Amino acid sequence: MNSIGELIRLTTFGESHGPAMGGVLDGMPPLVLIDLDAVRRDVARRRPGHAPGVSQRKESDEVEILSGIAPDGRTLGTPIGFIVRNRDARSEDYAAIEGRFRPNHADYTYWKKYGIHDFRGGGRSSARETVSRVVAGAICRQWLDTLGVSVRAELLPGPDVDTVAACGDSVGGAVRCVVTGLPVGVGEPVYDKLNARLAAAMMSINAVKAFETGDGVAASSALGSESVDRFVKTGDGLNLTCESNHSGGVQGGISNGMPVTMTVHFKPAPTLMRPVETFDTEGNEVVIPPKGRHDPCVAVRAVPVVEAMAVLTVADMMKSRGCLTR
Amino acid sequence: MNSIGELIRLTTFGESHGPAMGGVLDGMPPLVLIDLDAVRRDVARRRPGHAPGVSQRKESDEVEILSGIAPDGRTLGTPIGFIVRNRDARSEDYAAIEGRFRPNHADYTYWKKYGIHDFRGGGRSSARETVSRVVAGAICRQWLDTLGVSVRAELLPGPDVDTVAACGDSVGGAVRCVVTGLPVGVGEPVYDKLNARLAAAMMSINAVKAFETGDGVAASSALGSESVDRFVKTGDGLNLTCESNHSGGVQGGISNGMPVTMTVHFKPAPTLMRPVETFDTEGNEVVIPPKGRHDPCVAVRAVPVVEAMAVLTVADMMKSRGCLTR
Amino acid sequence: MNSIGELIRLTTFGESHGPAMGGVLDGMPPLVLIDLDAVRRDVARRRPGHAPGVSQRKESDEVEILSGIAPDGRTLGTPIGFIVRNRDARSEDYAAIEGRFRPNHADYTYWKKYGIHDFRGGGRSSARETVSRVVAGAICRQWLDTLGVSVRAELLPGPDVDTVAACGDSVGGAVRCVVTGLPVGVGEPVYDKLNARLAAAMMSINAVKAFETGDGVAASSALGSESVDRFVKTGDGLNLTCESNHSGGVQGGISNGMPVTMTVHFKPAPTLMRPVETFDTEGNEVVIPPKGRHDPCVAVRAVPVVEAMAVLTVADMMKSRGCLTR
Amino acid sequence: MNSIGELIRLTTFGESHGPAMGGVLDGMPPLVLIDLDAVRRDVARRRPGHAPGVSQRKESDEVEILSGIAPDGRTLGTPIGFIVRNRDARSEDYAAIEGRFRPNHADYTYWKKYGIHDFRGGGRSSARETVSRVVAGAICRQWLDTLGVSVRAELLPGPDVDTVAACGDSVGGAVRCVVTGLPVGVGEPVYDKLNARLAAAMMSINAVKAFETGDGVAASSALGSESVDRFVKTGDGLNLTCESNHSGGVQGGISNGMPVTMTVHFKPAPTLMRPVETFDTEGNEVVIPPKGRHDPCVAVRAVPVVEAMAVLTVADMMKSRGCLTR
Repeated sequence: MNSIGELIRLTTFGESHGPAMGGVLDGMPPLVLIDLDAVRRDVARRRPGHAPGVSQRKESDEVEILSGIAPDGRTLGTPIGFIVRNRDARSEDYAAIEGRFRPNHADYTYWKKYGIHDFRGGGRSSARETVSRVVAGAICRQWLDTLGVSVRAELLPGPDVDTVAACGDSVGGAVRCVVTGLPVGVGEPVYDKLNARLAAAMMSINAVKAFETGDGVAASSALGSESVDRFVKTGDGLNLTCESNHSGGVQGGISNGMPVTMTVHFKPAPTLMRPVETFDTEGNEVVIPPKGRHDPCVAVRAVPVVEAMAVLTVADMMKSRGCLTR
Repeated sequence: MNSIGELIRLTTFGESHGPAMGGVLDGMPPLVLIDLDAVRRDVARRRPGHAPGVSQRKESDEVEILSGIAPDGRTLGTPIGFIVRNRDARSEDYAAIEGRFRPNHADYTYWKKYGIHDFRGGGRSSARETVSRVVAGAICRQWLDTLGVSVRAELLPGPDVDTVAACGDSVGGAVRCVVTGLPVGVGEPVYDKLNARLAAAMMSINAVKAFETGDGVAASSALGSESVDRFVKTGDGLNLTCESNHSGGVQGGISNGMPVTMTVHFKPAPTLMRPVETFDTEGNEVVIPPKGRHDPCVAVRAVPVVEAMAVLTVADMMKSRGCLTR
Repeated sequence: MNSIGELIRLTTFGESHGPAMGGVLDGMPPLVLIDLDAVRRDVARRRPGHAPGVSQRKESDEVEILSGIAPDGRTLGTPIGFIVRNRDARSEDYAAIEGRFRPNHADYTYWKKYGIHDFRGGGRSSARETVSRVVAGAICRQWLDTLGVSVRAELLPGPDVDTVAACGDSVGGAVRCVVTGLPVGVGEPVYDKLNARLAAAMMSINAVKAFETGDGVAASSALGSESVDRFVKTGDGLNLTCESNHSGGVQGGISNGMPVTMTVHFKPAPTLMRPVETFDTEGNEVVIPPKGRHDPCVAVRAVPVVEAMAVLTVADMMKSRGCLTR
Repeated sequence: MNSIGELIRLTTFGESHGPAMGGVLDGMPPLVLIDLDAVRRDVARRRPGHAPGVSQRKESDEVEILSGIAPDGRTLGTPIGFIVRNRDARSEDYAAIEGRFRPNHADYTYWKKYGIHDFRGGGRSSARETVSRVVAGAICRQWLDTLGVSVRAELLPGPDVDTVAACGDSVGGAVRCVVTGLPVGVGEPVYDKLNARLAAAMMSINAVKAFETGDGVAASSALGSESVDRFVKTGDGLNLTCESNHSGGVQGGISNGMPVTMTVHFKPAPTLMRPVETFDTEGNEVVIPPKGRHDPCVAVRAVPVVEAMAVLTVADMMKSRGCLTR
């Protein structure tokens, strides 16, 4: 289904070349003052056409809030509905790919699952869907701000994207994300571990192939004696912190007060600026010409998307925590 | 909460040193003939004390089925309740750790979240909880068998565990898991992608720090031109397969008919056979003596747990798929 | 939360006097041809101002579909987003009630729960929310049509509404709803019984105070010997039907192939055309003047809402049934 | 599925004549002291064979707690697993009904849905399942006690059950339930209204045909002017109560601090002490002899079940409320 979260839940809709993308952010606490300019700034960070090396699609990405926020800017505690119109949906560009299965895209699997697929820009499977995530994350982040919780992501250094783009190729990328200010006790034991929910949230972003937290992949070749996060006392009362953070801020699925660290790995965009041989829905051999507007490195624009997913996941589990702690 | 899955859902309960571990497997299709000996064999694969280099705890791990299976062995379509008694729960061994926060364990986070914690063997946070997963997975796997879907995991080569154990140390490990025979169309778009659900299921296992699918971490430094999974026709009609499997069997969150591949990375067990300095619930500095029965490499016994989580996840989404496909 | 349903799920948003009402209908099967004129007709049936004895608010209630339906009218299997703009939101009419708790309305409970409330028309608690239900129900009904399942409701005879309205009073009403064409096997045992889900769906409609199915309230004073639904054979094979329908089409929570019958009881609209003494958010005694535009009998316009909730519930459980039946 | 509740969730399992009934109560807050004798007393209230006019099945109904409660009686915050063995499961009594569809029972619908059915005592569809509800309710009630919330039900006067039983007949009955001490603000707007959740919980009990809250069925013929719950101030600050309780303690789906009132209507038990003509799974005409042990008025033993469902529903929504209110 097209929803994520339990107590703070985002439901999204929209095809890349349909009338609009949009979503419903349900469960936001009441009385949070929302700065819509801050929402627009986050949305601008993922907008196509605004930076070298990203898709040339021109979208103003104007966010229209339809409910849930009072005229004075405060949340009502009711669901926040919003839409972003698709304005530069030049479907004619996509005539050449109608009915043709692009390799490593979702065209074939959607077609087989549903028996119908909006081939224009990938329809529902397009990364354009992530604009709704960023809108919701940018609203929800303002609640976390009031709690002193901060979420920041950055692209890790990799191959030079401009060079790759100049060759008509694409390249993968890794995004590092850190959540700071999280109190102890966020996350549920066993199946709804904080790190399990974060993994699912990140793996739900298009093109993600791996998720690491704490020591990540390196942990599987580490010795226990090298991996101890020794406790130290902090302040009065029973408040402990750790000298190191091999655990990545989560122990037993529950936050321990240290920064929650994770790295998200994106594959290269599967659309190349070269002709690609494939099949169409009739089973004919066809060639997809090097058209369309795509990103040589999808990880560049994914940075605010990773932040949004971390914000939504942490906020959802913080609200749940309110229930479980006396 | 202590449940996982939507249409096939496992709910588990049990503390390491309480009367019993157990679970409820809900949503199993009716009329599946269950071989309980096969269940026992899977359970035996994760049993402590049965192999070199694993915990010496002696548990017979007898599975008692309480409902959901008719006397003739066929599932009724009703929830399958089961328990595994904790027989070798020598709590006296744990007197030395009562109220003491073991580093990198869940003791501190549980204590802070709930204000109470069963320190004996880690209580609910113990890896002993995974016996319930293996029971459920072993039952559910028999439904997948009838559909031609197979799930197999293996420990990837790493440091010699016996040497590590002899040094009183522990080491991490990586488990590779492959699902074969899956038809096209399993998995939901956007938030409930098959790979997102698999990631959450694996990250919910104790000690897991990273999840990879397809090209995994390597994808983030790969070029698009190197990562194309070219389509080829297979058989009659519109059935395609791929020449390579960079995607790991999932495109757009939906299975494409290729093997679904993943690697799960486990950190080293945090309990060492050396004294460890820490704090207790009173805030006193204390030392935890090198007692208890623990695994030098938790990944060894985790192999059937990884299989169980893959089985449960795939089965859940296959049942859902039944609905979405005409 | 603002969602209902599991496999076919409606999420709605919108305050009575905000920019728009709207919703997301997720899980609709693909390839269902949607007649938008039929949607408009169902929406028109609940529109205010179109019949004697209902609210004079003038709303054109134009439905804008934003996603999930291809240009040729067929569903894509993706979420169907839609909005209905609030055009005749004459907030000035409501200045007199700002901050004043109308008796038997949700003003006081919302205010206490959230610390903020949109008093204009009741905000989120307004019956205007039901326009989203009717849109979704009208879309979903077209899938049921293809399956031969029909949902029809009607207002049961009661006091003359015009007379009541002329007295400045309001009156309750009862709506009878019948689902025909449902196959055997729809509904889940125990907690998700078809009748339990229908009850929840109906009780979620504003102003509903009672739900009956089959013999309803009368069953509690009936004798068993009078209440037997004797089986009779129908056609070939093992297909039975019943000579009577005391059960209301559901046995053990699962449809038995007979019509599913229910009656939904609505209280009188709590807003009267007379001054009402109450308190405001400052605790002052205040009087609410007899303003605003309201229905003397809310049950009149609730008929299509009852149908919509029955459609959504039955469709959700039919999709689930697809999974459970071999 | 066999679960109910979101933040406090009960999952049950067990067939009437299988090894055991049982359940998992997940989400109970930690540190609640549980009196197991009180649990046993509630269970005894619904036990068969203990009162005139109820089934003669003899079950000691011993409750075994398997997890979630520390040796000192305090909840751990982890899931509470429990079982009740089926001891007096005299299956031979049921040989005469094997494969025979009892009218107004779930035999036919289960058979058609699953293709298999445990005919012994109705299997999963037996009212014996409610023992698990009562165990869970009796545990959960002790948390509500600490919050000053009380749930009490009673059988409303009806026909003399002994007379009905002496005639070999059965009769329906109505149970009135009242929740007192509930603070303002429990329940969610729109689809998860407190009264909607209560309706679903009650309709999930075997044999329930109608649910009323507040004025109930009578509301549909009442005038608005007769139905006003006028506000009055109580104590200091902005705390209001009502002079009357037509609303039944819920306005806009949210508790208003008044007692929450409801009436649950049970049909007569469909099993009579007379021969019944029906069909078997082969389609043959057969007669079910007047055997088995059944209740002439199921509503008698249902009183603690109604209480349990009210307790579980209110507790679930109170925990949720903790999140939504600042």
